[in-house]
Amino acid sequence: MTVHRVPDVHHRLWTTRHTPTLEISDGDVLEFSAPEAAGGQFDDFRPGDPVPALKPELLYPMLGPVMVDGAEPGDTLELELLDFTPEGWGWTAVLPGMGLLPEDFPDPHLHRWEFPAEGDGTATADFLDVARVPVRPFLGVLACAPDTDEPLDVMPPGPFGGNIDCRDLVAGTRVFLPVQTPGGRLTLADPHAAQGDGEVCVSAIEAPLDGRLRVTLHRGRSIPTPQFRTPGPLRPGIEDAGFYATMGIGPDVRLAARDAVRYMVDHISSTYRLDPLDAYVLASVVVDLKISEAVDEPHWVVSAYLPLSVMNA
Amino acid sequence: MTVHRVPDVHHRLWTTRHTPTLEISDGDVLEFSAPEAAGGQFDDFRPGDPVPALKPELLYPMLGPVMVDGAEPGDTLELELLDFTPEGWGWTAVLPGMGLLPEDFPDPHLHRWEFPAEGDGTATADFLDVARVPVRPFLGVLACAPDTDEPLDVMPPGPFGGNIDCRDLVAGTRVFLPVQTPGGRLTLADPHAAQGDGEVCVSAIEAPLDGRLRVTLHRGRSIPTPQFRTPGPLRPGIEDAGFYATMGIGPDVRLAARDAVRYMVDHISSTYRLDPLDAYVLASVVVDLKISEAVDEPHWVVSAYLPLSVMNA
Repeated sequence: MTVHRVPDVHHRLWTTRHTPTLEISDGDVLEFSAPEAAGGQFDDFRPGDPVPALKPELLYPMLGPVMVDGAEPGDTLELELLDFTPEGWGWTAVLPGMGLLPEDFPDPHLHRWEFPAEGDGTATADFLDVARVPVRPFLGVLACAPDTDEPLDVMPPGPFGGNIDCRDLVAGTRVFLPVQTPGGRLTLADPHAAQGDGEVCVSAIEAPLDGRLRVTLHRGRSIPTPQFRTPGPLRPGIEDAGFYATMGIGPDVRLAARDAVRYMVDHISSTYRLDPLDAYVLASVVVDLKISEAVDEPHWVVSAYLPLSVMNA
Repeated sequence: MTVHRVPDVHHRLWTTRHTPTLEISDGDVLEFSAPEAAGGQFDDFRPGDPVPALKPELLYPMLGPVMVDGAEPGDTLELELLDFTPEGWGWTAVLPGMGLLPEDFPDPHLHRWEFPAEGDGTATADFLDVARVPVRPFLGVLACAPDTDEPLDVMPPGPFGGNIDCRDLVAGTRVFLPVQTPGGRLTLADPHAAQGDGEVCVSAIEAPLDGRLRVTLHRGRSIPTPQFRTPGPLRPGIEDAGFYATMGIGPDVRLAARDAVRYMVDHISSTYRLDPLDAYVLASVVVDLKISEAVDEPHWVVSAYLPLSVMNA
């Protein structure tokens, strides 16, 4: 077993044309520093500053591709997520036209979070004295690159994986990725310090981190999309108390999800006396979207769950 | 505070034409016996029997409507769920043309569960020696009746509530329902002993139960769809260990949910050597559908989570 440092070389599109930055063997460990998804353009923003104009060309710096010796299409790469250590700050943005409620929140907005590590290595991110969000870092983008010469944007995700933004891919979890091309072209990006299922306002706590993971190649094990196994309860310290939940109900599951979020924003802003924009940002970071039922045709029920353990009152 | 027994009179359609079966006051408690959703037609089925032909006219016997003194449209009824005691048996069916995977499982199938209460009042439902499902009973149908003269089917649910099949409405939870018509016309039905988020094969552990709940009227508090508050962690005894999860990824969130379930059925049947049909039934009862991300446009990620605590190996 060898430990490799992933070179700090970034690319921004899915394509098999990228020159590999590293070659490793089955069982090796990767160490890396993942830059946050804005590529540094929000580093200097502080509360009260005007929101800087977004530079899309800087978004989504990605690490890799890392070639795994012997990996072939039809195999599976297992990533054992060993540890993720965030720098201690992050941002959450509302970007015009994006997120689940773009008509409700049409203007750009940026929130900066500070969450220095405590003595035991854990961290908590305060939100406007109303909530305390446990930091549980993960990578929003994890994939074996798709088999495409033509460059594709980092958004959206696809069956290969990519920008899957799954909040449970924290240290301790084992992630299984389908290999798409020879060598696997493993790619890592988009670190998050915390996020709710759905990532409703379009961003998480976007936060740079240092990480380590072990790569194992399963030859001949084929999976259609990413899968993962967690070592224990999903969200300890967050799901240990009660919840408040709202619902969206109707034939269009996208609209049902939007309704559930809209009613949750109403609940948070009225209960905790927060500006609706701040409630939307908080919802993106802590509120989970669950499909309560998908079969009472033709209507779906999407529920938005607020974990009360993170709220101060 | 008065305790009322809800009369064992059943109706099967949403309409304001039903004669109320009970009138109560703010703060009163209801006691009731909720028949399972098949209306008794599967009572005599035992493993190995041919699946009886479905009699749709017997489906969904509902209790009520119960009139709450002073309730008016724009108010909210709070139900404090006090206790639910199942009889100790139930069924789960695959019904042709229904559920998330009707093409994969075109034939009717019926499974009978037995789960006698243990000494401490809890119960566990064994599934083919492969899984042990903790019984956490709830009502799939809870609503103030919609404002309609024309009769509507029990399926689907709507913004008023109805057939919402939300697995977290267990004893201890407080449910908030929007009042649609004078008196509220509170209606209760469709008891479940256990279910996963999504209820993917179209049924839960459908199981008759006795229950009690307290009704509180919030005059002038208006909510758009049902909401609820849980007293503690969502699913103790189920979510205390690890999970295995599969993903569906694409622009159609319905298809993404179907893919996630299909891959979970593959995982369960291959890992635990179960017939895919049995894996589908088990998934409906214990696997949860979460919307991992809804904003990496135009693709959604739906993840299906299997709680490993319920599996025997």
